[in-house]
Amino acid sequence: MKPERMGCGYISILVQLYCCGVSMNPIDTLVRARWVIPVEPTGVVLERHSIAVEDGAIRDVFPTEEDPSRYEARAVVDLPTHAVIPGLINTHTHAPMGLFRGLADDLPMMEWLQNHIWPAEARWVGAEFVRDGTALGVAEMLRGGTTCFNDMYFFLDEAARVAEEAGIRACIGLIVRDLPSAWARSADEYFAKGLKLHEDLRGSSLITTAFAPHAPYTVSDAQLERVRRLADDLDIPIHMHVNETADEVAQAEAATGLRPLARLERLALLTPRLLAVHMTQLQAEEIETLAATGVHVLHCPESNLKLASGFCPVEALMGAGVNVALGTDGAASNNDLDMLGEMRTAALLEKGISGSATALPAPMALRMATLNGAKALGLEDRIGSLQRDKSADFAAIDLSAVSNQPVYDPISQIVYAATRDQVTDVWVEGKRVLHDRCLTTLDEAAILQRAARWRDRIT
Amino acid sequence: MKPERMGCGYISILVQLYCCGVSMNPIDTLVRARWVIPVEPTGVVLERHSIAVEDGAIRDVFPTEEDPSRYEARAVVDLPTHAVIPGLINTHTHAPMGLFRGLADDLPMMEWLQNHIWPAEARWVGAEFVRDGTALGVAEMLRGGTTCFNDMYFFLDEAARVAEEAGIRACIGLIVRDLPSAWARSADEYFAKGLKLHEDLRGSSLITTAFAPHAPYTVSDAQLERVRRLADDLDIPIHMHVNETADEVAQAEAATGLRPLARLERLALLTPRLLAVHMTQLQAEEIETLAATGVHVLHCPESNLKLASGFCPVEALMGAGVNVALGTDGAASNNDLDMLGEMRTAALLEKGISGSATALPAPMALRMATLNGAKALGLEDRIGSLQRDKSADFAAIDLSAVSNQPVYDPISQIVYAATRDQVTDVWVEGKRVLHDRCLTTLDEAAILQRAARWRDRIT
Repeated sequence: MKPERMGCGYISILVQLYCCGVSMNPIDTLVRARWVIPVEPTGVVLERHSIAVEDGAIRDVFPTEEDPSRYEARAVVDLPTHAVIPGLINTHTHAPMGLFRGLADDLPMMEWLQNHIWPAEARWVGAEFVRDGTALGVAEMLRGGTTCFNDMYFFLDEAARVAEEAGIRACIGLIVRDLPSAWARSADEYFAKGLKLHEDLRGSSLITTAFAPHAPYTVSDAQLERVRRLADDLDIPIHMHVNETADEVAQAEAATGLRPLARLERLALLTPRLLAVHMTQLQAEEIETLAATGVHVLHCPESNLKLASGFCPVEALMGAGVNVALGTDGAASNNDLDMLGEMRTAALLEKGISGSATALPAPMALRMATLNGAKALGLEDRIGSLQRDKSADFAAIDLSAVSNQPVYDPISQIVYAATRDQVTDVWVEGKRVLHDRCLTTLDEAAILQRAARWRDRIT
Repeated sequence: MKPERMGCGYISILVQLYCCGVSMNPIDTLVRARWVIPVEPTGVVLERHSIAVEDGAIRDVFPTEEDPSRYEARAVVDLPTHAVIPGLINTHTHAPMGLFRGLADDLPMMEWLQNHIWPAEARWVGAEFVRDGTALGVAEMLRGGTTCFNDMYFFLDEAARVAEEAGIRACIGLIVRDLPSAWARSADEYFAKGLKLHEDLRGSSLITTAFAPHAPYTVSDAQLERVRRLADDLDIPIHMHVNETADEVAQAEAATGLRPLARLERLALLTPRLLAVHMTQLQAEEIETLAATGVHVLHCPESNLKLASGFCPVEALMGAGVNVALGTDGAASNNDLDMLGEMRTAALLEKGISGSATALPAPMALRMATLNGAKALGLEDRIGSLQRDKSADFAAIDLSAVSNQPVYDPISQIVYAATRDQVTDVWVEGKRVLHDRCLTTLDEAAILQRAARWRDRIT
């Protein structure tokens, strides 16, 4: 028996002793919901269930009618018209780019990047930009039920600090690319700063890291090999844009004779550590390779549509056994960080492009946005579903609006008809970070003021 | 000079006289907005403008700083963080079907219809169902900024009454099909009841009618010819599902040797009266025919995606000169009546399927959801844009949320990042039917209760 198992057994025995000794177990919070959707197993809806939270973890999920005999809670929260779901996990974003939201729309991707986004980044990105942009993004994500995000940007230390203070879970990408930036002048400096942050974050229960080599076309073989070795040493994921557009794949083939995935395979990067974002250009044998090597795919349907990048073949990937999770991408190409909307777009789009109305049903879309994301980030033992001993990261969605009536199936309502504004309450590690639509850890007025100031500066 | 022109000139002279005679013109309502987006011309944003409303019509749109010297309003409404747009026009829905929202998802279209929707309709649809379902749909639409909808269902008299009482503009489809229903036992009865309603609605400024032959595959040539003759006599549009799926087109070809549009052309139905819904199956020469004959296309992207029906070629249609407007379809296949979300889906999807990120830019998506809809319904002289003498049908969207910051471009925010819940106020014919997110003409609690009762009965 492993020590971890012993630990669990030990806790279980303690709980049992406790139950025998007293009739009421003291807990921190009792959330009584109309519906609890645990995500594991897929599609299950528990009507009139409660969640008991103690020390930041889920201690129990049980029928509310059993309530009186079980727990004595320091705080009881009634959610009579709400569905409680695991906190949404946004597996790909560039949170600070929210400050460029709507700056340049309806443009081809390379024109958008080269003539608008990259010049704006060169001019404006710095510690203050990342601090203010991350706070804006975190505020938006918490309000929309997202409790964890996987970020890739510059000035990582600022992003990590904002996330930690806001009480949101984050995986901060240790960015690596060949070109210098305001954050790092050389590959060595990218690595040094990334490793320093990783070191500084030891001990944080909320913030983890991943290496984030930007894309195959912006990072050399030498640096990718270094990423692979260090990711193995530190046991962290590798978060990378791969096969976002047909052009990028064609250019790689023209320059090297290899498609990007073949190059990554040669560099031994196709492993369960790799989180490959976008993946709109995939051949059948590449899908088999991804399945065989355990690579995770991070699907960003709205960004792919808006930039006309192509379609990620989600059904084919899932059918082959690939874990596919969901992300919004940055708000400069989405233009929001709304995971509820992203689920809907993912579910609708997959039916359209596969030609089958049974493709990506609502319960699977919800799983992609929660448990599949947790798996990709290596956090499936802590988050992604509402199960005993997982972290108390969850969101309540009020389904009482006219636009959600009648409720035959709460999962259908959430995926196909709810909006982010129906999220009323959010907990991360048992802390109520959104309380009846008010952020409790962030100064929203100040965030809005700073966003307006950035607009005035940038325009 | 035509009499209409004389009329306009006469009013213009009167207004000028009035301005000279007194310094302050009395009006009903003055709406002072951060942004006014008139839609005509496309893409224009008027910052800090006001709208003067008198006798249900827009009397003026002007810079707010000129305010003090112009109008004396009985009511002044300040919208300091809002964009005011023309009321959204939902050009294709089956409002009462909201009572089936989420009853059966993720199914192929014919299975969904034959095994779920049609049996449920046979069992439940009647006057009470249509009354309650229409009220639910109207409440949802008004809350989301929709001020006009083009409906096709049964028990039209109930739908018309609910819409009139709620103060929403509606075009009620006079449904015709070969099969009997709870509404009518024969083609003759469909026509008789439809014509009676048309007659009864004379004098209503809010409610108009269209003939609504369900689809080419459910209505015989004889009845389609009757529709054409009567529509000409009454001078009203013809609202019809056409080429929704590939199967339907293949079956028509197999049965008659003609594609549905060829049959409709033979029946002389391809005219500017025809509002052809869905149109996911179109050959290049059919697009030319549509353009040459002035047929309007009503695009329902979310329903087409959800049922995997195919893609309406919006860019190709618009490029050929066809007027394309937007609809949600019913909430049983969408699953909401959210025109803001539909605009976003339309704009994103068109980029994806056309492969061009410049396709269907945000200002054009907004035009599709407003002025193009007005044109399709033959109401472009009354609604669809914020112009002097048009009806005061408009909606205010609060863009102050974190998820909309910073605001570089309000049209981008509305199309790509706003949700229906940001709509705070709606006017129809100058009447404030949504007041700070509260419906003023509908009893929302009663609507919710009745929807819950239908769910209990149906499940």
